[in-house]
Amino acid sequence: MKIPAIAIHGGSGTITFDTNNSELKKRYLNALNSTLDEVYEMLSGGSSATECVSKAVSIMEDCDLFNAGKGSVFTANGNHEMDAAIMNGETLEAGAVAGLQGVKNPVLVAYDVLQNTPFVMIAGEEAIEYARHKNFKLETDSYFYTQLRYDQWQEIKGAAGMKLDHSGEGAKFGTVGAVAVDNEGNVAAATSTGGMTNKAWGRVGDSPLIGAGTYANNKTCAISCTGHGEYFIRGVVAYDVSCRMEYGGKSLKQAAYDVIYKKLKRMGGEGGLIAVDSSGNICMPFNTKGMYRGMKNEAQTIARIF
Amino acid sequence: MKIPAIAIHGGSGTITFDTNNSELKKRYLNALNSTLDEVYEMLSGGSSATECVSKAVSIMEDCDLFNAGKGSVFTANGNHEMDAAIMNGETLEAGAVAGLQGVKNPVLVAYDVLQNTPFVMIAGEEAIEYARHKNFKLETDSYFYTQLRYDQWQEIKGAAGMKLDHSGEGAKFGTVGAVAVDNEGNVAAATSTGGMTNKAWGRVGDSPLIGAGTYANNKTCAISCTGHGEYFIRGVVAYDVSCRMEYGGKSLKQAAYDVIYKKLKRMGGEGGLIAVDSSGNICMPFNTKGMYRGMKNEAQTIARIF
Repeated sequence: MKIPAIAIHGGSGTITFDTNNSELKKRYLNALNSTLDEVYEMLSGGSSATECVSKAVSIMEDCDLFNAGKGSVFTANGNHEMDAAIMNGETLEAGAVAGLQGVKNPVLVAYDVLQNTPFVMIAGEEAIEYARHKNFKLETDSYFYTQLRYDQWQEIKGAAGMKLDHSGEGAKFGTVGAVAVDNEGNVAAATSTGGMTNKAWGRVGDSPLIGAGTYANNKTCAISCTGHGEYFIRGVVAYDVSCRMEYGGKSLKQAAYDVIYKKLKRMGGEGGLIAVDSSGNICMPFNTKGMYRGMKNEAQTIARIF
Repeated sequence: MKIPAIAIHGGSGTITFDTNNSELKKRYLNALNSTLDEVYEMLSGGSSATECVSKAVSIMEDCDLFNAGKGSVFTANGNHEMDAAIMNGETLEAGAVAGLQGVKNPVLVAYDVLQNTPFVMIAGEEAIEYARHKNFKLETDSYFYTQLRYDQWQEIKGAAGMKLDHSGEGAKFGTVGAVAVDNEGNVAAATSTGGMTNKAWGRVGDSPLIGAGTYANNKTCAISCTGHGEYFIRGVVAYDVSCRMEYGGKSLKQAAYDVIYKKLKRMGGEGGLIAVDSSGNICMPFNTKGMYRGMKNEAQTIARIF
């Protein structure tokens, strides 16, 4: 395989397109391709893997197609609560934010936490205060409003009957993520999400949890997950792939496949992940109907949904 | 070794007792011993490991000697923000709370999240709202006020000069935790903390993060950590011990010692952990000067500080 290389995802689940709606499908593929093109250019120009995954995720946060940043779903209270994390595989430094509201790019705040604080994770009102204090771009409710997300919320609110029941959501796991290996062979991962539609009680999923939804280590790989977060937390999925490589001697592909197709399946957990190692090997397994995903290196560019 | 068995900790760090203050030392040892006695009686009476670690941690949360619940330290804003987690090693179910204020027993809320919600983790204002909604016991600021904690806060506030600098704290990592194996051979772990003195921006440490500060799996072990949380998050310490056993074929003791004395030391991370496997093997390594800790099974009861 070749370095540098990048892979991205825009969520997994039961993705269904009206056969007449090839326009929407095209928009998704265009979004994936343009993100890959822009960030691969940075990578091949010598930017670090950590900078590049931050950039890739922030581009997807600005796109209303994905459940992160601008396209975030509605919580039970009608808010948008966003989580994000980033990890540098060379230094094992990490940054994460949970429960951000009104912040345009949660992943950039997570990256700032990595670079400029002694902390790994900050959450809630005080984390929003931190974003304000550091002059990160804020947005009002109207920026995060999309008719599609509002309609999804209204439908679930009616169907579910109670706040804690997320079964009405079906199986769409909206998250965006990126993993990359740079010219130096350093890997990094970043993930960002708007959570689950109609989620209540300040639920935090796997995305901002180091080891669960996001992990990076030059010795093994960089990983970003998307799926039913609770299973990914209980399975410590991202770090599990890394440990199967480090302690079990598995290849990246064997480790990732065993976790997604065997372990998670046994637990009943749906979702997928993207992963890259320091040699530029990439794999993107998922056990759901589809996963918005793509990868790019010198030799090829791929963007797929099913 | 024997089952059932329980181990508990009350934090690690540079623990110094005035030689004249053997009274305080005695209070710590009494608190450890009485917790062990009460919970071991439940365990040997047939209670599940998960119930017992919840009980052990809630007893320590009610004791002002430890940095959790009543004895929680002050944040930079003069509040008390508490985190807790619990995991059942038989089912791999888990519950966690972060950023709770005014709740007497955070671990009981975490256990409720495990039992009664589809979520693993809830955080912030809405998590407090959840505790209220489920009628968990609340307490006012005066309950959480202790002169010792207040004086610690004032000293650090003055010395640190800036909110993000926690270097003034020295190396005291206050946390409480319990691991147990029950008569059925099921293991469980729970951890609770009042965080770092003068912590800012809604910082979340390793305690409530499944895989970092807390993890349990019948196949390997149950673990509760205490230490400089950021290193435990980046090292995914609790799950790392489990993976070294599951994929690397190490014994509980080898795995735990390698993580605390080698891996963490290399990273510069200070702290310790308690661990038990389904056969009742227990180990309690720490790389700091001391760790409040104890264990009890049919054969012996141990409570130690250094």
